[in-house]
Amino acid sequence: MIFERGLKGIPLSVDLWLHYINFYITEFSSSEDVEDKTRKLYEQAIAAAGTDFRSDKLWDSYISWETVRNNYKAVTKLYDRLLCIPTQLYSHHFDNFKKHVEDHHPKEILSLDEFLKLRQEVVKDAQDGDELATEGPPGTDSPPGVDAPPGLGYDGGMSDDVESRKLRVKIIDIREAMFKRNENEVSRRWAFEEAVRRPYFHVKPLERAQLKNWREYLDFEIEHGSHERVVVLFERCMIACALYEDFWMKYAKYLEQHSIEGVQNVYRRACEIHLPKKPYIHMAWAAFEERQQNYQATRQVLINIDKNVPGLVMVAMRRISLERRQGNDTDVEKLFQDYINQSTSPSVKSFYSIKFARYLLKIKGNSQKARCILTEALERDKRNEKLFLQLIDLEYQTQPVDVDRTLEVFDRVIQNDVQLDFKVKVSQRRMEFLEDFGTDIKRITEAYDEHQKLVKDLNTDRKKKHPDQLDDSSQPPDKKQKTETINGSGDSTSHLSSTSTPDTNHAYNYYYPPNPSSSYPYHSNYANYGSQYGSYYPSY
Amino acid sequence: MIFERGLKGIPLSVDLWLHYINFYITEFSSSEDVEDKTRKLYEQAIAAAGTDFRSDKLWDSYISWETVRNNYKAVTKLYDRLLCIPTQLYSHHFDNFKKHVEDHHPKEILSLDEFLKLRQEVVKDAQDGDELATEGPPGTDSPPGVDAPPGLGYDGGMSDDVESRKLRVKIIDIREAMFKRNENEVSRRWAFEEAVRRPYFHVKPLERAQLKNWREYLDFEIEHGSHERVVVLFERCMIACALYEDFWMKYAKYLEQHSIEGVQNVYRRACEIHLPKKPYIHMAWAAFEERQQNYQATRQVLINIDKNVPGLVMVAMRRISLERRQGNDTDVEKLFQDYINQSTSPSVKSFYSIKFARYLLKIKGNSQKARCILTEALERDKRNEKLFLQLIDLEYQTQPVDVDRTLEVFDRVIQNDVQLDFKVKVSQRRMEFLEDFGTDIKRITEAYDEHQKLVKDLNTDRKKKHPDQLDDSSQPPDKKQKTETINGSGDSTSHLSSTSTPDTNHAYNYYYPPNPSSSYPYHSNYANYGSQYGSYYPSY
Repeated sequence: MIFERGLKGIPLSVDLWLHYINFYITEFSSSEDVEDKTRKLYEQAIAAAGTDFRSDKLWDSYISWETVRNNYKAVTKLYDRLLCIPTQLYSHHFDNFKKHVEDHHPKEILSLDEFLKLRQEVVKDAQDGDELATEGPPGTDSPPGVDAPPGLGYDGGMSDDVESRKLRVKIIDIREAMFKRNENEVSRRWAFEEAVRRPYFHVKPLERAQLKNWREYLDFEIEHGSHERVVVLFERCMIACALYEDFWMKYAKYLEQHSIEGVQNVYRRACEIHLPKKPYIHMAWAAFEERQQNYQATRQVLINIDKNVPGLVMVAMRRISLERRQGNDTDVEKLFQDYINQSTSPSVKSFYSIKFARYLLKIKGNSQKARCILTEALERDKRNEKLFLQLIDLEYQTQPVDVDRTLEVFDRVIQNDVQLDFKVKVSQRRMEFLEDFGTDIKRITEAYDEHQKLVKDLNTDRKKKHPDQLDDSSQPPDKKQKTETINGSGDSTSHLSSTSTPDTNHAYNYYYPPNPSSSYPYHSNYANYGSQYGSYYPSY
Repeated sequence: MIFERGLKGIPLSVDLWLHYINFYITEFSSSEDVEDKTRKLYEQAIAAAGTDFRSDKLWDSYISWETVRNNYKAVTKLYDRLLCIPTQLYSHHFDNFKKHVEDHHPKEILSLDEFLKLRQEVVKDAQDGDELATEGPPGTDSPPGVDAPPGLGYDGGMSDDVESRKLRVKIIDIREAMFKRNENEVSRRWAFEEAVRRPYFHVKPLERAQLKNWREYLDFEIEHGSHERVVVLFERCMIACALYEDFWMKYAKYLEQHSIEGVQNVYRRACEIHLPKKPYIHMAWAAFEERQQNYQATRQVLINIDKNVPGLVMVAMRRISLERRQGNDTDVEKLFQDYINQSTSPSVKSFYSIKFARYLLKIKGNSQKARCILTEALERDKRNEKLFLQLIDLEYQTQPVDVDRTLEVFDRVIQNDVQLDFKVKVSQRRMEFLEDFGTDIKRITEAYDEHQKLVKDLNTDRKKKHPDQLDDSSQPPDKKQKTETINGSGDSTSHLSSTSTPDTNHAYNYYYPPNPSSSYPYHSNYANYGSQYGSYYPSY
């Protein structure tokens, strides 16, 4: 039924509940059990939305519905529930309650137990009062056995009116205490509620302040409120913040301590109803299901987002790592291959090839196949620097390092048709590699000479591009020497800058790499002969 | 003797040679063999400096010395040598030569052979002339056996004057041809010589143009000149450019095809006389000696520069790699340890520790000891990021990767007292590592959460520092989503920048790393979980 589906979606919508109930009443007014059914509906609504700070309308409607039916005792019970719940119109309810007490005789509105209890107290108070007032002699007591049942007939020396008044006072007093406690709870939430500018859903984003308020309000309830209140508040929040993944995730995270189904339900609503195209919530759901070892469900969640938003590398990698953790090697390889084939951009193809090669090398220990993958990738994406660096790293990863093979790769890169500055970087790596691993000094010297040529070319290139570039060749050699041959602890940056314009007229960077002695920047990219990736890395 | 030592240093100084010779003449005028001795000195001088473009003074002095001694034949021989050598005053020499021919009878200035040869030619020419002139009848010939020996007595019908004149013409003609050839050679060098503004030594640096001219002049002679001329030009160049390592190295490089001793001599002069504190020339010398397998000499050269300019990492690493190539493992380890102990700056100590660890791991396969070295280094240099990265890389290098141990290192770094932005980088690496190697999804989610906290801290940090920083949280979520969940081929830089100010209010970077989906920059530092060095690397 349409209402039920709607309420499943937004169980907090008081209006929707009221529509539903009114609709029901009008529709089924004929059937005899309509009243019970209606009451059930009201109870469902209260259970779902009754602790909502803004549920007053619902309560009022329920109360008046019972009042109309003269179920005064029921009304009192409702007030007893309501007066403990922090809601916006808490004091208005208390006033109505007082009116309700005035309008009816206590007998009508109280359960028999409470009525008798209170009446006894009233009588006792009265007797104490009498004893203080008139001390008659023994025997003036009414004769035993003549007492009428309390509240009927003989009224212990009070008129019914007097007694009712006294009873009403007592009834109110008790509720007054509740009210005070509740008022305090209300006051603690008032600021938060005040700050909620847009409780309804809207595609336009909420301002930062709103999101902040929701977050703090939720944290407050999580700390002080009942689980029920927290859930209700989350439900309210999810109406206004339905487009914000982080609130859905906060909700799911909260529920993890209470109910697995609850969490799954939250994720389902978020991913299937509100955010079918948001990857992080899907990732979170998948991670949750995987933690529950629901691997099939995990797969499905990832496949969904992968369908809804194709080309998300993060999702692809998670799908792959899921199969890896399951030990499904063939699936891992198949996925890698599929992503390589499917992706349209060459750089992405290459990215997956690098990942695949890395997996083959480091996890399967299959360097041969890793080499093939990278070589294939290079045929598709001939100038991709990352592929070349990966190829170098592949050789460098093997233990012990095969120097000749590694050098072949270095040479292959440098002879290749790649950017000049990249060649210079790789050539610098090669020199370091030779200094650390090379077995033939001749090879080192050659590499140095080749490097110098490259640096020279790079600078002529640069000067073409920036003819206004500063030229430091006018410095006297020994001055230059000071900066050039400064020891390793020298300020690297200064050397980097001077590196970028090596003065090929001076010996100390003619035959040798631009100030290798400014060792830190020069030697320091140690761990990665292979990879220059670090420098594409976001530098925070 | 002082002169000889001086001339060993600057064998090209014509003035020095002349002083030496004059000094000798005056000193030893008494001894009877002074003339031979002096001539020997002149010959030495000519051999050393005679082909110098500016050696005219020397030649003139030699020639006049012989002239004074009436050794006209010797003078002619000197001219015959001089007229083939491109020198500045080449035409002045030719004029002097003509005068020399005029002043003396051909018999005096020519060797007997040349004299006879030329005279025959003259006579022959004359006879041909006669035959054409007077055709006498047969029998008018002079009776046989009456002929006088030529040049004496009967002169074939010519007066001696006429004959000498004709001889002189022939003598000059022959030299004229030489002169022309030489003039051409001079003209090819004139521009270079013109451009030499400062032939003498000076500590002040030469302008770029001067160095360029020298370089081109040398290349010209190497291509067209004789080996002798090239050497002499180098020697001249090394006077003006004595402070420029690259010219010394160019010289040594040239000599390698001719003489090992020559090369060693050049390096010795450069390193021991002129450039005792220049590292590159020493490195080049060491490399040369190592190629000759003179390992002891190699060691000595490196030790010298290491003494003269302490703290050059480049030199230290060469000393170490020399021993490594020799397989002297104990020396390698000792050198590493010494450099670690000697170096004053902590960062340099750490640098050597990293190198040492790398050597132990990749060459000796001793990861255990490598680990110790790095741990020791961290005790000295507690916040050195490179050491931490090296420690990570060490674990990552092992095959297969020990995931738990690697993660321990990651955690150790992140919990350590290092820069926040560094923590964020390492934490990002850890997430990638977990995605690729992790066996437990829980661990990944935790890492993500921890990463988000770090990023959040980093941003609050930033905002403290730059409160004027742009805040993109006002963008509608879906707009942001477009940039955030763009697929891997997205322009990385845009993501880097947005990464650096992740808006922690939005789901898509709240629970997850700043746009992991901007995969390239994020996943791309693949090869180096361990090392961030790449980013300290000179970015050309």
